[in-house]
This record gives sequence, C-alpha cells and structure tokens, in this order.
Amino acid sequence: MPTTTGHTSAIRAKKVIGTSIKDTTGEKIGTVEDLVLNKENNSILFAVVGFGGVLKIGEKFHPLPWASLNYDEEEDAYVVPYTKDELKSAPSDTIDELTKNDGVAYRDQAFAFYKVDHYWT
Amino acid sequence: MPTTTGHTSAIRAKKVIGTSIKDTTGEKIGTVEDLVLNKENNSILFAVVGFGGVLKIGEKFHPLPWASLNYDEEEDAYVVPYTKDELKSAPSDTIDELTKNDGVAYRDQAFAFYKVDHYWT
Repeated sequence: MPTTTGHTSAIRAKKVIGTSIKDTTGEKIGTVEDLVLNKENNSILFAVVGFGGVLKIGEKFHPLPWASLNYDEEEDAYVVPYTKDELKSAPSDTIDELTKNDGVAYRDQAFAFYKVDHYWT
Repeated sequence: MPTTTGHTSAIRAKKVIGTSIKDTTGEKIGTVEDLVLNKENNSILFAVVGFGGVLKIGEKFHPLPWASLNYDEEEDAYVVPYTKDELKSAPSDTIDELTKNDGVAYRDQAFAFYKVDHYWT
C-alpha cells in the first residue's frame, strides 16, 4: 500500500516504535509498542499497538496489519480509519499470546478484522 | 531460511534490536542497532549492525540480510559466518545513506556481498 506523503518507503524500526496512532479526527488512540517479525520469510507479521500508560502484567495489545498504518507528517502519527472504541473491540491479547505459534493466528485475525489484503499466499 | 534452534519464527523487533552479533568462534563482532523496513510491501529490507560503543555523528553501519541472522540461544546472539575483518570490509554507510532511495541500493549491495538469496523478485 503506497504511503500518501511521498516519503521514502524505507523506515527504521526504532522510528516506528513509540509513534502515536490517531483516528481520522486527530484523536490519539494508541502507540506502536513493537513490531512482530517473521524470521522465516522476511515479512512483518503485524504492528503491536497499546493504549500507552504504564505497562501492566497481563496488559493486552492489539495486532494491526503493517499496511494499515499510514504515516501523516502533520499529525506526526499513523492515522488509521478506526475509532478508539473500534480498536477496543478488535483482536487483542498479551504480547506472549500474540507471538505464540509463529504469530500466525493473530496475524490472520487482525487482517480479517481490519479487512486488509493478505501479503501472504 | 529456517532457524536452527526451533524457537517460534515470530520475533519482536524490540528483542532483536540490541542483540549481539558473534562470529562462529563466539567473538562478539557487533550489535543489531536497528532494522530497516519496507513500508510498501511488508518486508524487512535489512538489519543494521554497528560495532557498538558511543554513537558518533557520521558513524557507519552495516546492512545485513535478515535471513543471515541465525539466533543461537547458548550464545544469546546472532551467529554469522563472517569475521570482524570481513564485516569491516563489507558495505557500510551512515544510517541516513542506508535508508535513502527506499533502501534498495544497500539492500542489493548487502545481499550480493553476503551471497544471500533474494526474497524479492
């Protein structure tokens, strides 16, 4: 999915992690906490989004398809077409569960929930 | 490329960044400083390896193919079949140069230098 701002398509993981997620009204709905990568086939399984604040044991995070994150320079955030309430009802689990069994279960759930085209065949 | 240790193939970027790189004799030759990701097609362009220490302006980093990093639990490091001297003569540049023009130039140089199969067509 092309980015809309015309910046280079190569981006550093360290710059992605910690970036805000906003809805289309500009309200901050979360933060990119991490990225889950596939060691076997060079692909990004999904981004891990949290609601920020102090991390608690058992805190749940949301897997979001990488392609659903479009960086908006003016907002200095990834702007997604979801509301905070929609994100609350989206697939979520602890970081350990998200990465279990090669991360495929939550990757598939996230892509189905957000209706993003699969990058895998 | 399959990992040799049988751990899950899903791995968090935050766990990768900061991990040591060792040669096959167990000598530490560097650290994963960052990962460069492709926003357009869901792929990992390359890992960015530095020799550690205090980061200096203009410091050069080495792009390494993601598939060339095999995690060794006993060493708690990615063990690569290169010596520190080989790494010193490998492609390297500042982080800004590495990510220029979609990162493709250094991705191609790194995959050619380390003779790693392309993941792209």
